[in-house]
Formats: sequence, structure tokens, C-alpha cells
Amino acid sequence: MRIGILGYGNLGRGVELAIKDNPDTELVAVFTRRDPSTLKINTPSVPVVNVTEIADWKDKIDVLILCGGSATDLPIQTPEFAKLFNVVDSFDTHAKIPQHFANVDKSAKEGGKVAVISVGWDPGLFSLARIYFNAVLPEGKDYTFWGKGVSQGHSDAIRRIKGVKNAKQYTIPVDAALEAVRSGSNPELTTRQKHTRECFVVLEEGADAAEVERQIKTMPNYFDEYDTTVHFISEEELNRNHSGLAHGGFVIRSGKTGNDKQHNHIAEFSLKLDSNPEFTSNVLVAYARAAYRLNSEGQTGCKTAMDIAPSYLSVKSVDELRAHYL
Amino acid sequence: MRIGILGYGNLGRGVELAIKDNPDTELVAVFTRRDPSTLKINTPSVPVVNVTEIADWKDKIDVLILCGGSATDLPIQTPEFAKLFNVVDSFDTHAKIPQHFANVDKSAKEGGKVAVISVGWDPGLFSLARIYFNAVLPEGKDYTFWGKGVSQGHSDAIRRIKGVKNAKQYTIPVDAALEAVRSGSNPELTTRQKHTRECFVVLEEGADAAEVERQIKTMPNYFDEYDTTVHFISEEELNRNHSGLAHGGFVIRSGKTGNDKQHNHIAEFSLKLDSNPEFTSNVLVAYARAAYRLNSEGQTGCKTAMDIAPSYLSVKSVDELRAHYL
Repeated sequence: MRIGILGYGNLGRGVELAIKDNPDTELVAVFTRRDPSTLKINTPSVPVVNVTEIADWKDKIDVLILCGGSATDLPIQTPEFAKLFNVVDSFDTHAKIPQHFANVDKSAKEGGKVAVISVGWDPGLFSLARIYFNAVLPEGKDYTFWGKGVSQGHSDAIRRIKGVKNAKQYTIPVDAALEAVRSGSNPELTTRQKHTRECFVVLEEGADAAEVERQIKTMPNYFDEYDTTVHFISEEELNRNHSGLAHGGFVIRSGKTGNDKQHNHIAEFSLKLDSNPEFTSNVLVAYARAAYRLNSEGQTGCKTAMDIAPSYLSVKSVDELRAHYL
Repeated sequence: MRIGILGYGNLGRGVELAIKDNPDTELVAVFTRRDPSTLKINTPSVPVVNVTEIADWKDKIDVLILCGGSATDLPIQTPEFAKLFNVVDSFDTHAKIPQHFANVDKSAKEGGKVAVISVGWDPGLFSLARIYFNAVLPEGKDYTFWGKGVSQGHSDAIRRIKGVKNAKQYTIPVDAALEAVRSGSNPELTTRQKHTRECFVVLEEGADAAEVERQIKTMPNYFDEYDTTVHFISEEELNRNHSGLAHGGFVIRSGKTGNDKQHNHIAEFSLKLDSNPEFTSNVLVAYARAAYRLNSEGQTGCKTAMDIAPSYLSVKSVDELRAHYL
């Protein structure tokens, strides 16, 4: 399976690594909007190509993995390139998935290609857990917790405050809330009860720490509904201790069965990831395999994780899966 | 969706309950090998029919859910009835799944029907977790833990010992082993390190307790490789405290990514079930929905959970799932 990567940030580099762990995949080109001569990739034998020349690769690539951002890149790129290639993206703006799906579906059908959107872990594997759990526990309640991990959006929001030089924000699930959910008591949890927010902030010289802390803690939507802790640290400490990309989370469904709904059932799926982009990249590569297989079977159009049978993701044959993984 | 149930034990009664929680399903008949007049079911409006008359129901049932046992019932029943109906079973003898699949596939194709086999939680949802986790973490190690829950096979083995009147055996995962796996250290765990076995035994009058305990603890395959605890209790206490059908377990994959495989990732799926048969029944009903839909689309033959896209299990439309569950 010949793979192309578009975009060489954390995710693009993660896909490049993931390809090495998947023996049926081969990286054939990295596409970039930058001047290709300025981009050094970790696989020197693979050509770096300006994205303006991507159409020349139409018959040389089986799946193009789109590694851009959901805010501005993917809404344009995925529909555009689904006309030329089987594509996979990690579009993660949950509220805009139906619109993105419609746009991509039209293009992919025009091009006779398969496009798999919104795969990663949330949306992606967490979505699958929600769908399976709801199907098998029709009477129940869903809970999703995120973290511990860095929220890029919240870190950015802090950085926009006057006097802040740099910042990292961790979203942390509250253990007591997790335990209450696991007990089967189906608690109603407020935003504040589910997650806390911990901020590590580097100030500009002469900035007013108390005022920065006040602005963070009262910021609408981002922080005002949470218990937020603010730590002021040096830039050196930020770089040393807070440059990781760990993340994770929990999807839990608490359901009831029985004549009097007297039996509790807890289904829980959790991820604890040292590197969010490297894990997401592996999910993208697994769905690239699915996209290629589905298209080889004659399918076209847009798909999400819920539309694809699990066996399509595996490098193993269905016979082997049936014998050893069921 | 018109559902028939074959077999009215714990699983059959669970399916009958599950149908009430799934608004698109309707129970139309319960089939039994017994004299129908001797069987009182919990839905008095539904006819109880002897299995010898099942062919008369060919056009009145959309999916037949087979609630027999894996040892002797399902190897015969599933191939036989897949010629007449879309069927679902919970065949759980892992080693014999490929043979069962082949037999059922032939029948279902002859009959133009879809048969979904081996759905429940293991095999079933646990199989899905293993397949997804392996696909997205190609470099790693799998662990499955079962319990805390009653093992029917081990309880039966104790009951066959001379002097034993009744017994229940709990399989219990070892917390230290679970924690070691979650740490990402990829431990090699022996059978003894993963699970303990706890036995509650009612003796016949005059039986030799020490000899029964010795026979249990040294029983090859069943107990000799485990740390086993034996409690002797009264029949009254056994019935009062050990008649539950709770079960559960954990599927964990510990994977590594990165240039030097320096990043650990833990994917974990767990179930904690107050009623094993009622939960399994709900899984059967969700896959009955999938079987019916797949057959309505023109598909035939045998499928397992890994062959079926998640959206087929849900009562909700794909548009609703895309908007609210991804």
C-alpha cells in the first residue's frame, strides 16, 4: 500500500513512523506547502514534493493521509484531494462533522475514491466505544472524560492574555467523578465535577501575576466553569517539564437490565497515551488500510469509523483473525 | 424486526427482556424442545412453539436468536436454522470457531440468509477490542483478564468430585498483575500471576473436607496452576450469597511508538456485569439488528463481530450517529 503524507508537523512525522511498524505500507512521498528544499524528513530516501504538484502522483499513491489542522486545512484539503486519491483525515471539530462528511462524500464519489474522515481517538476510537456501548446497553448513561493531557485550545487561550509569554494547560479528570460513574450510580455531573484544569504559565518580564491569574480563572467557557490551578514557572522549566504530548481519556457507559432494572453494567474504554500525535497517526494508518481495501472492492464516498467493519483495519487475514483474535 | 427465540434458559429469558428495551424489535415466538404447554414465559401474549414446527415460521420471523449451549446445541442448531432464518448465536468455544464458521457459512449461503456467530462479550466485544487495539498499536502486547465472575466449567469440575454436593468457583484477576500491565512494563505473566480461583463448596454429609480440598487444588488444568482458595459453606449460604451471575473482565493492549519505541500507550476495555446472561442477550439483540439489515441489503453467509460495521448495531440512523456520537 503506497502512502503519501500531506503536512509534516507532529502528525505527519507520526504517520512516517507508523508506516515503519506496518509491513504492508510504504511511504512514497511527503507533500508540503513549504519550499521542499527547506524540509528535512526522517526518511531521506522519500521525496518531498510541493503540494502544487500532487496531481502528478495520482497513480503512484494508494492512500493520501492528510495531516493538517481541522480549523482551516482539512475543510479545504479533504474534499479537494478526495477527488484524486483515497484519503484519510483526523478532522476533529465534532459539531462540523456532518457538513464535512457531506462535502467530502460528494468529492469522493466524483473521484471514485474512498475518504475516511474523523479518525483518531476522539473522534475515532472513542466514537466507536460510544456507538457499541449504546447499542448493547440501550438503557443507560454515557460519560466521556479527557486527560490527563494538554489541551492545545486552552493553552492558546492563556497565551493570548497580555503579559503571558508561554503556557501549557492540562485537562485532568476528577477521580471521584470517575469512581462515582464506575459505581453504577449514574450521577449527574456538572462541568466542574468532571474535570479540573491546571495551568503552567511563563510571564513576560514585569507582568502582573495576580491579574493574569484572575483573567485565566474567569475566562468564559474556557475556565470559569472549572476549578483551575495556575502555576507561574520559568520558560526553562516549561520546556523541561511540560513539552510532552501525552493525553488520554475514558468513555464509560453505565447501563441497566433486568425486570426491575436491578442489574448494573459498566462498559469502559480508556486510553493512556505518551504521545497523542504518534497514537493518532497509527489510527490514521489503520484506516488508510481500510480505505484502500474498500476502494479495491469498488466502494466510493465518505466513511467514518462507524461505517467500517473492524477486520478492514487489520494487517492480518480474516482467517487468522477468526482463529486467533475472536 | 420480528424476533424468535430458540431455547428458554438464562439467555433466552435475557433476550426476551432485551427486546423490551429495543423499540424496533418485537418478540413473535419462543421455540423449545420441551412440551410447550409446560413452559411459562414472561411475555404471556407470545406463543411458545415446539421446535419441530419452526419451519412454519419461516416468513413470520426476521431473525432467530439461538440461545442454546456451545457444547452440543449450537454446532447443530446454527447450521440447521441458518438455512431458514437470519440467525444469531453466542458460540463461545474459541478453538472451534473456524469450523463452526465454515459450517454455518455454507448453510446461510444456501438459504440466502445472514448468520452472525460468536457474539456476546468474549468472544464478541472483547474480540473487537483485541482486533482494534492490534490494528492501531501494531507493536505491543495483549492481555485479557476475566472476572471477577463465576466460571461454570470450573464449578462443574468441583461438583464432579466425590463428596461434593454443590459448588461455585470464582475467577478473580490479580490486581498487581493488572497494575503491572497498565504501567506499560509489558510483563510476562504466568497463569498463576494473572488470576486466582476462589471456591465455595457444599459437602455431602460425612465427606472428607481435607481430601476434597486436596483434589480441587491439584486438579490438572483447572486448578493446579493457580492459587486456589477453598471455603466450605452450607447449602443455604451458597444459595443466599453465591447464586448471582455477575462477571466481567479486561482487555488491555500495551503498545509502543517513537523512534526508539520510547512512548508507551495503554488501551483498555473492561466490563463489569451484574448479569452475564442479560448483558450477553443485549449483545445478541444488537447483532440481530445487524443480521437483518445486512440481509435486507442482499448479503448472505456467516459473519462475526469483526465483519460488521458498528453502525449496523445501532437503532439510531447514521445521520444521528454522525451528528451526536462521533
